[in-house]
Amino acid sequence: MVAEPFAKVIDGKSMVKQIREEISAEAAKLKEAIEVVPRLAVILVGDRMDSFTYVWNKKKACESVRIKSFEYNSDFNCDPSVHGILVQLPLPSHINEQNILNVVTIKKDVDGFHPLNIGRLAMRGREPLFGPCTPKGCIELLHRYGVDIKRKRVIFIGWSNIVGMPTALLLQREDATVTIVHSRTKNPEEITRQENIIIFAMGQPNMVRGSRIKLGSIIINVRINPIEDASSPRRYQLVGDVCYDKACKIAMVVTPVPRGVSPMTIALLLSNMVSSIKREFYPFDSSYTWGNLLVYFAG
Amino acid sequence: MVAEPFAKVIDGKSMVKQIREEISAEAAKLKEAIEVVPRLAVILVGDRMDSFTYVWNKKKACESVRIKSFEYNSDFNCDPSVHGILVQLPLPSHINEQNILNVVTIKKDVDGFHPLNIGRLAMRGREPLFGPCTPKGCIELLHRYGVDIKRKRVIFIGWSNIVGMPTALLLQREDATVTIVHSRTKNPEEITRQENIIIFAMGQPNMVRGSRIKLGSIIINVRINPIEDASSPRRYQLVGDVCYDKACKIAMVVTPVPRGVSPMTIALLLSNMVSSIKREFYPFDSSYTWGNLLVYFAG
Repeated sequence: MVAEPFAKVIDGKSMVKQIREEISAEAAKLKEAIEVVPRLAVILVGDRMDSFTYVWNKKKACESVRIKSFEYNSDFNCDPSVHGILVQLPLPSHINEQNILNVVTIKKDVDGFHPLNIGRLAMRGREPLFGPCTPKGCIELLHRYGVDIKRKRVIFIGWSNIVGMPTALLLQREDATVTIVHSRTKNPEEITRQENIIIFAMGQPNMVRGSRIKLGSIIINVRINPIEDASSPRRYQLVGDVCYDKACKIAMVVTPVPRGVSPMTIALLLSNMVSSIKREFYPFDSSYTWGNLLVYFAG
Repeated sequence: MVAEPFAKVIDGKSMVKQIREEISAEAAKLKEAIEVVPRLAVILVGDRMDSFTYVWNKKKACESVRIKSFEYNSDFNCDPSVHGILVQLPLPSHINEQNILNVVTIKKDVDGFHPLNIGRLAMRGREPLFGPCTPKGCIELLHRYGVDIKRKRVIFIGWSNIVGMPTALLLQREDATVTIVHSRTKNPEEITRQENIIIFAMGQPNMVRGSRIKLGSIIINVRINPIEDASSPRRYQLVGDVCYDKACKIAMVVTPVPRGVSPMTIALLLSNMVSSIKREFYPFDSSYTWGNLLVYFAG
């Protein structure tokens, strides 16, 4: 039995700090070279508290790397001073999400949710204009922590349009051997117990305890779940799908919640913004493609 | 040890005969109701013998269900008398496949290869206008043989834009738990030996012998591989990725090659042609959607 925590905890925050510095330097170079400041349009409908918080965090992140963001409405698709359009999901239930998402031009779809971007992501030999931010964040995080996923078996838990499906497609592009476990999978623990790299995006707080994961595995907690906590001043705390304390004692690498994948998501949004401008102004420079965060910041 | 063949062999040919009869009746009804005969445009470039054969087979299949097909060139996208456009792949190497496929309007993309169709296929809550024919053929074949895939673990061997990827997406929509094994997977036999439903689409003749599959499993052979055979009048024979004789002794259900999945592919193309017209003339009848072959022919 292993009693003491021994997992290496992924420090999403300092990783993101480094990425933001790289993006900030890129944005500064762009401003000097072509006098363009990246501008992100955020479409926020309704009054959900969590959506306000997400938008606020994205706004602050943009400011930190000299990207402008704003929320008033205009014809963002045609406005040449807007380089990215983000529809904060979920929309209020009386609004058809598909109809709204479909009108965002693929050229400014910095969230990467347009079906044409998803289709290209799925197809070998094709490239989306933008990769979805959370999936790219997961992969980037694994890369930067030196976790080799090529030829490795990876289990992804939770199928969704925003995270599960595009992450599976990205992992596939990286030559991982992917199994997708979802809410209707029979005996999921039979699968999770066997494998070394598991990405959890189910949205069930502390669903997985130690017994379901393998000694020495790599555990990525994507979803952030609020649970009641009378002892906290906010009356709640945020936890992952995997019980963090238990995972720390068993896993080799584990991402904390909330400071693991979520700051990476926002960092990748910023990176998509910079890519949007580079594609427009340097269309023949192939180093500015959607998937090459590592390569592209290496130079 | 099991010595005698005991697998139930899937009779693709008689299954297809039944489907074609159903489609033929549908086409006849359409002709009577709206005086429209489905027309398929086939774009064939170059002189590959296998492509000629495939096109010839599709043409004969169309004729058998009163769908017209033709090959001369015009502006197929705008021609209202054309209901489906099919680009026979692969194209000669000097032609950019992507550029050709991209110009086929999604409304006539009866092969389902347009990235927008693939993107919608990947996304829950979205529907492609057409599902790719071979993947739909595999699923239809399993359904019609009474193989329940919901909540079952399914292994797909071989990732490709035409078969592997869209089949994995379709299986996912059917709530199967999918693992994709590909050419870079380490120790694939460890995975194949464990599971009950395995779809092979690798393109390696007789790659899998009996020892790698489980007693009582369900084996779908998608790819057709020619191998030299001096004893055959044609000097070659067609085999699957799984050695058929061996599989027959170990599997519970097995598809033969060439008469298993390949006739289903063509049958599903015919079905997509009929759907194309129904969508145009009965846009509000939701029973004519891309995925409902069973439901749609039940009435």
